[in-house]
Amino acid sequence: MSKPTIFPAPKSKAESEEGTVFAPRFDAHGLLPVVATSAETGEVLMLAFMNEEALARTIATGEAHYWSRSRGHLWRKGEESGNAQRVVELRTDCDQDALWLKVETAGAGANCHTGRKSCFYRTVPLGAPPGGGLSLRFVDAERQFDPEAVYRHAGAAKGTLKSSE
Amino acid sequence: MSKPTIFPAPKSKAESEEGTVFAPRFDAHGLLPVVATSAETGEVLMLAFMNEEALARTIATGEAHYWSRSRGHLWRKGEESGNAQRVVELRTDCDQDALWLKVETAGAGANCHTGRKSCFYRTVPLGAPPGGGLSLRFVDAERQFDPEAVYRHAGAAKGTLKSSE
Repeated sequence: MSKPTIFPAPKSKAESEEGTVFAPRFDAHGLLPVVATSAETGEVLMLAFMNEEALARTIATGEAHYWSRSRGHLWRKGEESGNAQRVVELRTDCDQDALWLKVETAGAGANCHTGRKSCFYRTVPLGAPPGGGLSLRFVDAERQFDPEAVYRHAGAAKGTLKSSE
Repeated sequence: MSKPTIFPAPKSKAESEEGTVFAPRFDAHGLLPVVATSAETGEVLMLAFMNEEALARTIATGEAHYWSRSRGHLWRKGEESGNAQRVVELRTDCDQDALWLKVETAGAGANCHTGRKSCFYRTVPLGAPPGGGLSLRFVDAERQFDPEAVYRHAGAAKGTLKSSE
């Protein structure tokens, strides 16, 4: 576990779970997994990561910031696409190593870099052993924007962006 | 990224995002983050991790299995508490490195090892710089069971269990 510098160091198990001090427990890479849901519909929009700075900025500004594992830098959701996420509520889990954001999305309302409302637009079939190969089914997969048009810069157009943005 | 043995190796970015082959992308530790929501209310219940075997068993049986990072082993949700999760729907995200389960919880309906329905029973205040310390607020925090009574074995009672179970 990496040592936090902005937030207090993680507390004992009992204090983490039943206390009121927010002392998030970042993993060995200094990250926390974060799920964002629609404040309006409850739908899961994306699952991403925050480092300390992303979390501190999210709390201070009320706008979701994340750490991109693939690009190795902090980003404000929507900084390019305009689909910013206003945080309506932020919750921590029992042992303070995961977060839940309820958000309102600006712009076209797309939270996925593919232009869709949610990153979770395909279902995995259940009930069969996965060895033989599993075929995904598209659901709720309409695009809210055209990613080629929205992400102008070459890196984005070539698809080096990840998960969102 | 670890090489999968049960599932196909991850595909190209385009195939991962727009294809129908399920080829999940496990991280360097062989894990995927997974969010479980209530199939009934949409509420976020827990955020945990699966390794390949946990995912394969979840798909084959329709019951949620996870990998415990703190205990270093695979567990079937509810194996001790009776609060098993029947998976109603499983979705993958755009780049196939995160999963969303919609579940129905058996037993007392508690998904958190503290006895609560959800692991996310405290909110973090927004709008102030976090440097000065942030005080959590309990919400939706009623216990569905008494963890001391439910987890009989010493390890559980001493609190080596994590996130759920």
